[in-house]
Amino acid sequence: MLFFDGGGAPNARRVRIYLSEKGIDIPIQSIDIMKSEHKTEEYKKISPLSQVPALELDDGTFITESIAICRYLEALYPEPNLMGADPYEIAQIEMWQRRLELLLMIPIASVFRHGHPAMAHLENQVPEWADANKPRIINFYNWLDNQMNGKDFICLDRYTLADITALTCFEFAKWPKIIIPENCKNLKKYYQMLADRPSAGA
Amino acid sequence: MLFFDGGGAPNARRVRIYLSEKGIDIPIQSIDIMKSEHKTEEYKKISPLSQVPALELDDGTFITESIAICRYLEALYPEPNLMGADPYEIAQIEMWQRRLELLLMIPIASVFRHGHPAMAHLENQVPEWADANKPRIINFYNWLDNQMNGKDFICLDRYTLADITALTCFEFAKWPKIIIPENCKNLKKYYQMLADRPSAGA
Repeated sequence: MLFFDGGGAPNARRVRIYLSEKGIDIPIQSIDIMKSEHKTEEYKKISPLSQVPALELDDGTFITESIAICRYLEALYPEPNLMGADPYEIAQIEMWQRRLELLLMIPIASVFRHGHPAMAHLENQVPEWADANKPRIINFYNWLDNQMNGKDFICLDRYTLADITALTCFEFAKWPKIIIPENCKNLKKYYQMLADRPSAGA
Repeated sequence: MLFFDGGGAPNARRVRIYLSEKGIDIPIQSIDIMKSEHKTEEYKKISPLSQVPALELDDGTFITESIAICRYLEALYPEPNLMGADPYEIAQIEMWQRRLELLLMIPIASVFRHGHPAMAHLENQVPEWADANKPRIINFYNWLDNQMNGKDFICLDRYTLADITALTCFEFAKWPKIIIPENCKNLKKYYQMLADRPSAGA
């Protein structure tokens, strides 16, 4: 296998953290988004929609989409389990994973892609959309803080893929300068625990 | 189990089609979004973020998020398989599922929620965002038409969850009056095949 990495891009980092937690070692080829390397015709043969990351399998086919890559590897290497070992666990992780993606990751990406000058050459920016998403993120942080009361992990009693997504969201949100509000004590503690794991350096 | 249905909402319909294809029969309780029944305090005990659909399990806990519900049921009832029977299949279905959700379903929802008068009471509308998403949908349809050349299903050689998502996208797009372009012959044929299955009536 060969992993086409996307550097700081949150979806690329998400897979790197996953690989670190699983202890899976795959050769890496870097793709520099800021140099538009993901938009070359050569890379489009790997990832037709110019997405990073991507995984080349030993038969020469490719998987794009970060979570599809994780799901492939989880099926090959079930332990340590990060995506659920029975129907209840599988559903809980997926539910939290989707809440974080749909209600946190996408709003953060919207603020960054549509509001940050560094993204102007990659995006037809709609500044009104960036502005509309800022309060949604703060509202979600406050809701999530309440949900994290008394919990170490976002779901189940162990670290899972949903926690990886939470960490990448918290750090991605710093790009458009949105930080976890001071009053969200549970969330700040949770974030610190995630950031202290060795995999956070991946 | 008890299924809290959301009527015409695409995510509720997606689960109903899934149940029909699997031949799973679960009692249904209807939640009327247009009457804001999903925003009552009583329903928030089931789905804290006021989302439909939701599934109540026999132990009295709940799963929200349509795909989490499907994943729970898939783990309980693996046949007929709609979410992948080996690592390759699992990854392909997830990859296509995510492409459709992120690059088609969400843009369609954006046009509808931010551009349609009927949604004004449920959404802080940003009309500029509705306008920005219309061409993305048409571009994606054209890309997908090319991908469907010579294929009966969107991935693998059989009907899967990704095909369910494709059907709900095509029909959801009609709400904001976006139809598959005439030149997309592969896509129109594919849509007709999906719409002709008995499950499309669910």
